[in-house]
Amino acid sequence: MQIDGKEYKAIWFEDGVVKLIDQRKLPHKFEIFTARTIDDVVFAIKNMLVRGAPAIGAMAVYGMALGQKDIRKTAKKLKETRPTAYDLFYAIEYMVDKLNAGEDAFKVATQYVEDIISRCRKIGENGEKLIKSDMNILTHCNAGALATVDYGTALAPLRLAHKNGKEFFVWVDETRPRCQGLLTSWELEQENIKHAVIVDNAAGYFMSKGDVDLVIVGADRIAKNGDFANKIGTYEKAVIAKENDIPFYVAAPVSTFDTAIENGDHIVIEERDRYELLRINGKTIMPEWVNVKNPAFDVTPKKYVTGYITEKGIIKK
Amino acid sequence: MQIDGKEYKAIWFEDGVVKLIDQRKLPHKFEIFTARTIDDVVFAIKNMLVRGAPAIGAMAVYGMALGQKDIRKTAKKLKETRPTAYDLFYAIEYMVDKLNAGEDAFKVATQYVEDIISRCRKIGENGEKLIKSDMNILTHCNAGALATVDYGTALAPLRLAHKNGKEFFVWVDETRPRCQGLLTSWELEQENIKHAVIVDNAAGYFMSKGDVDLVIVGADRIAKNGDFANKIGTYEKAVIAKENDIPFYVAAPVSTFDTAIENGDHIVIEERDRYELLRINGKTIMPEWVNVKNPAFDVTPKKYVTGYITEKGIIKK
Repeated sequence: MQIDGKEYKAIWFEDGVVKLIDQRKLPHKFEIFTARTIDDVVFAIKNMLVRGAPAIGAMAVYGMALGQKDIRKTAKKLKETRPTAYDLFYAIEYMVDKLNAGEDAFKVATQYVEDIISRCRKIGENGEKLIKSDMNILTHCNAGALATVDYGTALAPLRLAHKNGKEFFVWVDETRPRCQGLLTSWELEQENIKHAVIVDNAAGYFMSKGDVDLVIVGADRIAKNGDFANKIGTYEKAVIAKENDIPFYVAAPVSTFDTAIENGDHIVIEERDRYELLRINGKTIMPEWVNVKNPAFDVTPKKYVTGYITEKGIIKK
Repeated sequence: MQIDGKEYKAIWFEDGVVKLIDQRKLPHKFEIFTARTIDDVVFAIKNMLVRGAPAIGAMAVYGMALGQKDIRKTAKKLKETRPTAYDLFYAIEYMVDKLNAGEDAFKVATQYVEDIISRCRKIGENGEKLIKSDMNILTHCNAGALATVDYGTALAPLRLAHKNGKEFFVWVDETRPRCQGLLTSWELEQENIKHAVIVDNAAGYFMSKGDVDLVIVGADRIAKNGDFANKIGTYEKAVIAKENDIPFYVAAPVSTFDTAIENGDHIVIEERDRYELLRINGKTIMPEWVNVKNPAFDVTPKKYVTGYITEKGIIKK
C-alpha cells in the first residue's frame, strides 16, 4: 500500500524482529511498532495494534517463528488472543506442522505472508471486474491492506480498479465501536480514492436513496453453507442491500471458509470489553455507570450474499 | 420525569425566563440553562441544548412569548433553527395566530406545553398495553421526557409499564453521531428501568438472535400515507425488524402527522455539521482531513410500521 507516496506493508519481518503499523494510532498518527518476543506479538494481537483476519494470521506465523523454542506454549498463547479469527487458528496449526517437520521457521512464515499478499492481489484482480466508473460502493469496517498485510480483501478490488483508471466513490461506514472505518478512510486517502465516512446508521439511508450500487465487505469466518461472520453491523448492511436490490459481495481468501462449520449457527460470537463503547482512543464517550453489551461480530446468512470474491474467482450462489 | 428522585420537566417557565435541562451536558452532568431572550431560545434550539420535536415545539412557544413584541421577526428567527422539525413550524404558527388575536402569550404557551405533556401521558397509557413482562424492547435515539418536556413518546409506554410493575429490558441504540441513546440510558437509569446501550450496528444482531420482542421509536414528521422521518438509522432498524417479524411501532402525537405531505418522498432531510462526526462532546474522534456526509434523519416507508401509538389510540395499518 502507498503511505505518503512510499510502498509499505502492514506487517513485515526485518533484522530478527516483527515490525507493524500500530493501528491504534491511526488515522491520527502513523507509527511503527516493533515486536521482539512472542509476548510482544500476543500484546499486539490482543490490543488490536493489528486487526483483520489475514493480518492476525501473519502475526501468528511470525509469532510462531519468534517463539519456536516452545511450540506448544507459543501456539497456546497465540490461540487465546482472539476467539473468532479463524485465520489465527489456521496459521498456528500450519506453523506447528511445519516446525514439527523441522522446516525453517522464518522462511516458512515469510512464504505464508507472501501467499496472503498474493491471494489478496488476486482477490483484487477478480473483484475489480465488478467495478465500473461512476459507481458508488459501500464498505463496512476495514478489510484493507492494514487488515491483510497488503492490498486488502474488500479494498483490493477498489485499489486495482483505481490503478486501472476507473473513477468511483466509496461510502465508508464508521464502524462503531472501534471506528475501523477511519482506517479504511486513511487507506483510501493515501491512494487518492474518493470517499466519505458516514455513521453506520446512514448506510441504509444512502442505499434507500439509490446512492449505493455495490457493497463489498470482508469476512472473518465463512461457514460451509456460505453464512459468514464479520464485524458487527455487517448483517444490517446485507439485509438493507437486499431490500434495495443492491449486489452484496464478500471478499475473502478461500482459507476463510471453515468447512468444519455447517452454517452460521455454529459460529461463536466474541463479546469484547465494555470500554470499546465507553471510550474512543482513550477519550471518554460514556460515563462509567452506563451498562453496555458489546458483541464484536454478527453472522450474515448466505441468502443476503450475491457472491464471494476469492483468489480462485468469484463464487456466485 | 424523576431525576435524583425529584420530579422535573425538560423545559419550564419560571419568573419570566425559560429554564431547560442542558442536554449537551448529559449524560455526564445535569445542568439547567436559563433562556432570558428570544436569542437565547434560538441558541438553545440551534445548538441542541434542547432536541426532540415536541420539546422544540415547547421552546418555540416560550420563544414566541419572550419575543412577542415583534411577532414576525421572532417567528422568522425560530423557523430558521431546524428545518426538519414539523412541530417547530406548527408551534410557531399556533402562537402567531393566538398573539394576533390578542391572547396572553405566556398563558397560551403554558397551556400548549401542558397539552404536550398530557398527550405524551396518553401515548404512554395507550402504548403501555403493548408491553408485557419479560419483553426485550429496542429503541433508537431519545424519544424520552428530555425530547418531549415530560414522559416522552417512545419512552412513555416504558415509563408507565414500569410504574405498573411490569419488568422488561430495553436495548438502547447509541445513535451516532450525537449519541442520544445516552440520554435515553440516563432517563432509564434515573427511573431504574433495566437496559443496555449498544452500538447501532448491534441492533440487527440482537434482533436476528431473537433477543428483541418489540421496537418503539419516535418520529419527527409523519407523512399523510404513514411514511415517517426520524433520527438517522431508524430506517435500518425498521427493515431489520420486519425481516425478523418483530413488531415495529412509532410513538408520536397526532400533531406529528403532516397531512400536507402525501408521502415520505417529500420530506426534506437536514444535513448537519461535519463536526457531529468528527467530535463527540468536543473530543476529537476523527482527524480534520476526514471527509464525511452527515444526514441527520432518514425516511422509513409505512410498510415497515406495525402501528402508530398516538394520544388518540394505536393506529394499525
